[in-house]
Amino acid sequence: MSGAGGTDAETGSGLSIFSKYDPLKQRASVLEKVGVDPFDMTFDDIMGPTRGRIGNREIILAGTNNYLGLTYDEAAREAAKDAIDRHGTGTTGSRIANGTYVEHEQLERDLAAHLGKPSCIVFTTGYVTNLAAMAGLAGPNDVIFIDADAHACIIDGTRLATNKTTVRFRHNDPENLDRRLSRQAITDGGHALVVIEGLYSMFGDIAPIAEFAEVCERHGAYLYVDEAHSYGVFGPTGCGIAEAQGCLDKIDFYSGTFSKSLASVGGFCASRHPEFELLRKVMRPYMFTASAAPANICAAQAALDAIKTRPELRHNITARAAQLHAGLAEMGFDLCAPASPVIAVRRPNEAQAAMEWNWLLKEGVYVNLAVPPGTPQSSCLLRISVSAAHTEEDVNAILSRFKALQDNSAEIMGEMMRRLQASA
Amino acid sequence: MSGAGGTDAETGSGLSIFSKYDPLKQRASVLEKVGVDPFDMTFDDIMGPTRGRIGNREIILAGTNNYLGLTYDEAAREAAKDAIDRHGTGTTGSRIANGTYVEHEQLERDLAAHLGKPSCIVFTTGYVTNLAAMAGLAGPNDVIFIDADAHACIIDGTRLATNKTTVRFRHNDPENLDRRLSRQAITDGGHALVVIEGLYSMFGDIAPIAEFAEVCERHGAYLYVDEAHSYGVFGPTGCGIAEAQGCLDKIDFYSGTFSKSLASVGGFCASRHPEFELLRKVMRPYMFTASAAPANICAAQAALDAIKTRPELRHNITARAAQLHAGLAEMGFDLCAPASPVIAVRRPNEAQAAMEWNWLLKEGVYVNLAVPPGTPQSSCLLRISVSAAHTEEDVNAILSRFKALQDNSAEIMGEMMRRLQASA
Repeated sequence: MSGAGGTDAETGSGLSIFSKYDPLKQRASVLEKVGVDPFDMTFDDIMGPTRGRIGNREIILAGTNNYLGLTYDEAAREAAKDAIDRHGTGTTGSRIANGTYVEHEQLERDLAAHLGKPSCIVFTTGYVTNLAAMAGLAGPNDVIFIDADAHACIIDGTRLATNKTTVRFRHNDPENLDRRLSRQAITDGGHALVVIEGLYSMFGDIAPIAEFAEVCERHGAYLYVDEAHSYGVFGPTGCGIAEAQGCLDKIDFYSGTFSKSLASVGGFCASRHPEFELLRKVMRPYMFTASAAPANICAAQAALDAIKTRPELRHNITARAAQLHAGLAEMGFDLCAPASPVIAVRRPNEAQAAMEWNWLLKEGVYVNLAVPPGTPQSSCLLRISVSAAHTEEDVNAILSRFKALQDNSAEIMGEMMRRLQASA
Repeated sequence: MSGAGGTDAETGSGLSIFSKYDPLKQRASVLEKVGVDPFDMTFDDIMGPTRGRIGNREIILAGTNNYLGLTYDEAAREAAKDAIDRHGTGTTGSRIANGTYVEHEQLERDLAAHLGKPSCIVFTTGYVTNLAAMAGLAGPNDVIFIDADAHACIIDGTRLATNKTTVRFRHNDPENLDRRLSRQAITDGGHALVVIEGLYSMFGDIAPIAEFAEVCERHGAYLYVDEAHSYGVFGPTGCGIAEAQGCLDKIDFYSGTFSKSLASVGGFCASRHPEFELLRKVMRPYMFTASAAPANICAAQAALDAIKTRPELRHNITARAAQLHAGLAEMGFDLCAPASPVIAVRRPNEAQAAMEWNWLLKEGVYVNLAVPPGTPQSSCLLRISVSAAHTEEDVNAILSRFKALQDNSAEIMGEMMRRLQASA
């Protein structure tokens, strides 16, 4: 390339490969004008599952998806450090080469047993878990049906897969799926693969999995459920919303992540079909990614043990979520769904949401800003994720900041207008 | 789904979603008949960068891509454990939410400085690095040009990208690229993105990057070089083959992985275009993957420090690679390329290569079996990767096993035939 800003002789455009993102620059600058850019921020320190530091300010973390708060759990940390002592800092090999250690297999067996499935495969990240499994399962003649609010990694799974047809059905609507399955011709030995999530990560709303399972069974469709945000949190033994709804055994493919309740980084997909094991020799993101480092595997293993033996973690997160949801509802905030560990507060527009996000951070509370296109219904959200490590006092502190946000609304909006105008 | 083996009422096929992989089962069973399946093996223990254990047998590891042997480096292990003490076992958040710590940014700055580029972005795996950067760079009007021997993650990058056209050019052939760039119409403000690798991981052959850079400059095409297998190993300061060929400053995008020389898990892409930073808000595998755990980041940081301060690591791996290559060549083995840390020995067919792989393992040497479709020219390979942690004696031991393989060839082939027939 003739250098940044140089004229491109071949295409004659005079623009760079980055020019297509000029509108993004515009948008980013609006976010920057009102304060810290919520998508480009760094904590100066993280001190625990619910505490960070920016400058001298201690921040309550309320947007981390650290649902069980186990990243600082003593057993998880000891297990990870012990793995480093025994096996070093990485495997430097994929699962199909030298990257399968006894610990990878043990975790697969234990996750499979926990979910009551004969097969479970562990991956290096949660994002590639859905990419790999979906692209491995769906061939050219198969049709993938996805929920209209599907997470990015499910959409990317349909892109990596060689299926010719992807059908979207209405969010959390089994009847709509039923109709689409009836209408869609599936030929040449193809099959239907229906992909849903347990807890949707933006609104915190829950899928009627049992009803979806009934529809899938009737149509001979395979049901794939991503319980990234619900595994470890819901169900009598922590097996997620499918377990809570009594239909865990009907799920053909059950995926999850290590970077939420399991306090590490990685992912897994379990199946009630023993043939799922075949996919180890098919799934490219599995075959061509270095396996998870021993420390990551052993931390997830310790967190799994906690999920199995410490039901108080689930009781605590449920109680804190109910407390926070009730408090915000009482103040009149527009909440997107009933109480769950994800509580999304709807705001009127992006600039205001960004300004409020900054104000909350300044007041010592970190939540997530969520804006289109990453949100359903083009919503602008202040998204909170609750942790079992939050105390009742933490939740009261979060609530008091939202109350102050409400009380100081006129002042905050005035300040926003000044900042936007000052830099216009 | 009506259960494994049930009839699929809708599609009427009577087959399952796994039936498309029946041929694979057949192939796997051939591999299993001759011994351990090379793609589904587990070490009972890993004791160091060059030593593993299966049962009571100590194995010399010669197929791990642990090029600098730093996974057991004391500084890397201490850095990783210290990160766990300070920041826990995972960030439970993506880079655009709560997953950017001071350590992620420090590593990005240090990698950028090492490569002399203004921008560097760190990812959670090497595989997603190319997926994310390629899909972020190439829009619908851009054309991606890839080498015929491109790695799976580059091919998958073209699948995830929204580009309409992907052009393959002849392996390591700048003239062929030149012709294809001349012939390909690029319209509507689109650009050409040319993706090559420094060291090709199967044959161990090296790209003429400087010549490719000249062709790209002439055509106004952007050059993207994946130095996953060469960063830390080649070049006066470890900046890879581009540095060795004196053209590092001509590379528009330079990607690498943490799971080889950098002794961890993760990846990075550096660019000479400051606008590359914009892609942080575009690249979905970056935005929707939990960030690398603090331990993984800090281990890579320690390995980077070793790359910068311990040139003897590069001298050692170069000497060991030369020793092994010369020894194998002298025995008359058919080697795929001149000496490099990847040494591939061509074998006549898959069954024989698998049998020999098993025999070498039994004799205490782990190499990689590489077979189609993962190999160029449909080759069947015994692939060796050399490490700076290998001693001269280790390499002599590996050579003696290959000598014994040659000397016992008739016997090994006889045993293979017996096993294949016994289970036919």
